[in-house]
Amino acid sequence: MMTRGKLLHMNAGNGECSYASCSTLQRKVIQEAKPVLEDVIKKMFNNIIGDFPRSCFNMADLGCSSGPNTLFTVSNIIKIVQVLCHEKSCKMPEFQAYLNDLPDNDFNTIFKSIPSFHRDLKEAEAEANCFISGVPGSFYERLFPSKSLHLVHSSYSLHWLSQAPEKIENNNNIYITRTSPPQVFEAYMKQFDKDFSRFLQVRSEEIVTGGHMVLTFLGRSIPDPYGSHSAHLDLLSKSFIDLIHEVQYFTSANFLLSSSNSLRV
Amino acid sequence: MMTRGKLLHMNAGNGECSYASCSTLQRKVIQEAKPVLEDVIKKMFNNIIGDFPRSCFNMADLGCSSGPNTLFTVSNIIKIVQVLCHEKSCKMPEFQAYLNDLPDNDFNTIFKSIPSFHRDLKEAEAEANCFISGVPGSFYERLFPSKSLHLVHSSYSLHWLSQAPEKIENNNNIYITRTSPPQVFEAYMKQFDKDFSRFLQVRSEEIVTGGHMVLTFLGRSIPDPYGSHSAHLDLLSKSFIDLIHEVQYFTSANFLLSSSNSLRV
Repeated sequence: MMTRGKLLHMNAGNGECSYASCSTLQRKVIQEAKPVLEDVIKKMFNNIIGDFPRSCFNMADLGCSSGPNTLFTVSNIIKIVQVLCHEKSCKMPEFQAYLNDLPDNDFNTIFKSIPSFHRDLKEAEAEANCFISGVPGSFYERLFPSKSLHLVHSSYSLHWLSQAPEKIENNNNIYITRTSPPQVFEAYMKQFDKDFSRFLQVRSEEIVTGGHMVLTFLGRSIPDPYGSHSAHLDLLSKSFIDLIHEVQYFTSANFLLSSSNSLRV
Repeated sequence: MMTRGKLLHMNAGNGECSYASCSTLQRKVIQEAKPVLEDVIKKMFNNIIGDFPRSCFNMADLGCSSGPNTLFTVSNIIKIVQVLCHEKSCKMPEFQAYLNDLPDNDFNTIFKSIPSFHRDLKEAEAEANCFISGVPGSFYERLFPSKSLHLVHSSYSLHWLSQAPEKIENNNNIYITRTSPPQVFEAYMKQFDKDFSRFLQVRSEEIVTGGHMVLTFLGRSIPDPYGSHSAHLDLLSKSFIDLIHEVQYFTSANFLLSSSNSLRV
């Protein structure tokens, strides 16, 4: 089984089918979680440890993808810190923003949008020395030096597992649905448990004492693992199976055609 | 006049005409400068300041481009440090490698080559915790937080000015050649002086006390500014002018054709 890192990434560029053009849901999620982010930064600000956040505020956005949301969170964080600095009449720190996603993510498109990000901050009178880096790699591995981050943010990404559970028979489903056998639920649960434990382990090595994480990801509001959330996955599974049958039919037909052509030759 | 940042970048990808496939000269330059790099790192290693290099060795490669040379320097530095650590029986530090180039550089191709970079290090028994980031932007501006870098490296990049000198008449030449008027030489000299001073100013804010820079860039071995180096620039100027004439001729011919078609309609 290939790991997710070698298999998946959001659609690149700015075209009609790109992730950049189809990520309003994810933006809404970031907006809804903003009060939590504000509370966390306020708490960090009031419990200053060492010289933080007076020198450089190091933050990482894990699973940043490529589109208008990528720099939206960074911009939000800078504006929150600006308000706090203004209230306490203290100097704005510098910001180091690490944008992380898998190596196949379209970092080129993010990087081209950085000048407009700085322009927008200037227009919002929130100009800051903000240094932006792209960090390719899986967030289930180490990505940053030890004790180097003050704030880790991840929105709508951590429900992506490092890989599908191995050796399961799932009746042609792509996730847990009503027709999945009970051991499938267990297998996904174990995979999430393993991945999330690994995530916490590696982040604990990278975050400074007193640092924080704000993680937003999909969950269920009811205990039933086959609840309403899986309805669209049922449909997606069926569409994939139809597609596979069509490809198989097309390949067979093409093979027959080629064979008959060869026979004629 | 547009600045270089909005105008130029090396050819992307791995194709026949890509920079990645046409950068053996630049690799040779890196190899020739390697003894200087070794001396500098040895000096840093013997004059440990604070906890450097015991914790994390922060290095930046400015004008890294995209191709096999991009991670070659990082790999060289890790191997040099490994030998020194082995000699002194001390623990390898972690490495944070910042790869910088203009925002239009092909960072996507660099990032896809990172897994093979780690594999190569492992094969050379120089495995290290090396965290790689891409940093888009002009090296004539601030790119990193204050006092954050131990080593700055730049090879075959600093002869690129931030822009061509403004308001000069250069007889259709693209650089200093034998047919350039004397004030052109002065204008380029002033532009380099301004750019290089700015480069040193911003780096001095970013480098830690005791940090070092290894800069390799084109120079002249003779005082004559119209020396042999400009011969290929003469030819390039002439080719550009031919190309412009051809485009002008094609555009005029096309305009005439369109006009006569319109008349017929």
